[in-house]
Amino acid sequence: MASVKTKAPGVFPVIMAGGSGTRFWPLSRASRPKQFLPLATNRPLIVETLARLKGLATPKQTFVVCGAVHAPMVRKALPSLPKGNVLVEPQARNTAPAIALATAAVAHVDPRGVLVVLPSDQHVADVPAFQASVNEAIAVALQGHIVTLGIHPTRPETGYGYIQVGEPLSGTARRVSRFAEKPDRATAEQYVVSGEYLWNAGLFVFRADVMLEAFKHHMPELSQALEPIRAAWGTSKAAKVLAREFLEMPATSIDYGVAEKATNIAVVPSRCGWSDVGSFNALPEVRPTDESGNVSVGKDVFLIDSAGCVVVAKDKPIAVVGMKDVVVVDAGDAMLVLPKEKSQDVRKVVEALKAKKRLALL
Amino acid sequence: MASVKTKAPGVFPVIMAGGSGTRFWPLSRASRPKQFLPLATNRPLIVETLARLKGLATPKQTFVVCGAVHAPMVRKALPSLPKGNVLVEPQARNTAPAIALATAAVAHVDPRGVLVVLPSDQHVADVPAFQASVNEAIAVALQGHIVTLGIHPTRPETGYGYIQVGEPLSGTARRVSRFAEKPDRATAEQYVVSGEYLWNAGLFVFRADVMLEAFKHHMPELSQALEPIRAAWGTSKAAKVLAREFLEMPATSIDYGVAEKATNIAVVPSRCGWSDVGSFNALPEVRPTDESGNVSVGKDVFLIDSAGCVVVAKDKPIAVVGMKDVVVVDAGDAMLVLPKEKSQDVRKVVEALKAKKRLALL
Repeated sequence: MASVKTKAPGVFPVIMAGGSGTRFWPLSRASRPKQFLPLATNRPLIVETLARLKGLATPKQTFVVCGAVHAPMVRKALPSLPKGNVLVEPQARNTAPAIALATAAVAHVDPRGVLVVLPSDQHVADVPAFQASVNEAIAVALQGHIVTLGIHPTRPETGYGYIQVGEPLSGTARRVSRFAEKPDRATAEQYVVSGEYLWNAGLFVFRADVMLEAFKHHMPELSQALEPIRAAWGTSKAAKVLAREFLEMPATSIDYGVAEKATNIAVVPSRCGWSDVGSFNALPEVRPTDESGNVSVGKDVFLIDSAGCVVVAKDKPIAVVGMKDVVVVDAGDAMLVLPKEKSQDVRKVVEALKAKKRLALL
Repeated sequence: MASVKTKAPGVFPVIMAGGSGTRFWPLSRASRPKQFLPLATNRPLIVETLARLKGLATPKQTFVVCGAVHAPMVRKALPSLPKGNVLVEPQARNTAPAIALATAAVAHVDPRGVLVVLPSDQHVADVPAFQASVNEAIAVALQGHIVTLGIHPTRPETGYGYIQVGEPLSGTARRVSRFAEKPDRATAEQYVVSGEYLWNAGLFVFRADVMLEAFKHHMPELSQALEPIRAAWGTSKAAKVLAREFLEMPATSIDYGVAEKATNIAVVPSRCGWSDVGSFNALPEVRPTDESGNVSVGKDVFLIDSAGCVVVAKDKPIAVVGMKDVVVVDAGDAMLVLPKEKSQDVRKVVEALKAKKRLALL
């Protein structure tokens, strides 16, 4: 492993855990966002994310970026992580500031260290394939590229961003031709047929010094705020400076702020059974299904004459009879029923609860 | 009222509460059958049944027939009833023995008393119309007929038995031409169009002496077992004789044992907003619906983009999004989701639970 060679730059995974989505209501709440839910397996997604890195880096080299509210949950979920490796954003300001914070942390211990930035709330079925792709990305990153993983699309998904591949670089790595926004259905179909487009998994691999340089060129305002944070790192003033300067950074995504502008962007194509576990509709991708295509979570689910359903039970039995493609969720303190293909409409419940000021349910 | 005139026979309602249906699982259980559930209003059906009799007879004149298991629940639900008016069947043996027991009780106090036998688990929207029909039935019964209420059908229902009306008798009362089994759809449509068929509501009005005579002719075996019960009534041997003789009675319905055979059977047609509340599918008949035809029971039901649904919440919120004609029930200790038109399939859950010996859920 790279990290045990003393001269070579170390590998530093950075797990991004700042998310606070509502797409898994009533399981997910402000106080228990998606990454802390056991959605794909019986362990929380964030625990699986750390486990997926085994062999790539030790927990000591691994960082998590999250908000202050969730830091205690992160420490509890990932007890092997040193306490100081949980980097707390003073405010949720999108991915660029979060990655800047992590880059500063890594640069402090290893200026040419390689960061492997990855979301905390995704699923990967084929971990060896994933690690092989990340290792290839690390090799390309060591040459000075900002590398992303591109997932071979398995369907014309309209919920993901796409990456158009450019000229070959080395191994399977390609330059990035462009990042494409979430497409409409027809465009997504074209993308898949063309063979030129990959799903953007939101995973970035780069050397700390390369990203600091990229910030300087493409996000000078952010770079300017980052310098005093870096200067104060490890001193008694660190927290105070961070609290002040972090708010000066533009609340921009790393995609928009850096990836779409930089010319040294590369992509490593991967087939690793990746899923962003974006909604209840995604559970049949990541969970075992019965012979009728039903997913059931919890021991007391009775599925009768039903097909294509997603049923999540908590502490009491749920019987689903004669239903097709429906989502039924008992979170213990609230229940949800909706058609599987309308899983995104969960947000309508959250909006209704907000309108009624039912804060305890949000 | 008839009861206050000393010479005229009294009126004695008999509420039949021996049922133990499974069609409202998970609300209904062996320990809380349908008649104890607040299905049509916020009071249990059996409480509404007693309330519906106000003015026809006093609680002192009203009897309930039920099994030993449910007697304490009956007494608790109907505290105005004298304890001795709860007649306990030694065993569930269908309606003829239960009615025989009630007839013996009434004959003991008033040999020509008029029994108004009615199920404990139905709903009536128009109580004055119901009472008018019952009063007309009482008048016909006093002339020596066994009278049933026949409900004007409002749809070609295949779940009910029908009564074909015969020649006029007096007032709106008719002789019964025949009792017809639950029809298939085409037959039910014919019945409704013909105007000659009424729904059999399972309600019978008759003089005690008339029914005792009918038992003698049409159910001699039952009659023979009933005589020692009547002879011991009010004595110290009553319980012992009842326990022994009741089991000798054939476990037959009053419809099959008497009504379909007797020639002195009459029917009073009624339009009283009657429903047998046969399944979740019937709740929109008896409960208020919103502008999309949804019924919701419980204060925390969130219906979004949904129509024709029946949602029963207990102590926590239920959100139903984008669903049509679905039943969602939280009983607190178990949940059910099924299409409204397949409400009868609840029994499949009960069968599955039996097969898995999940006795606590039955």
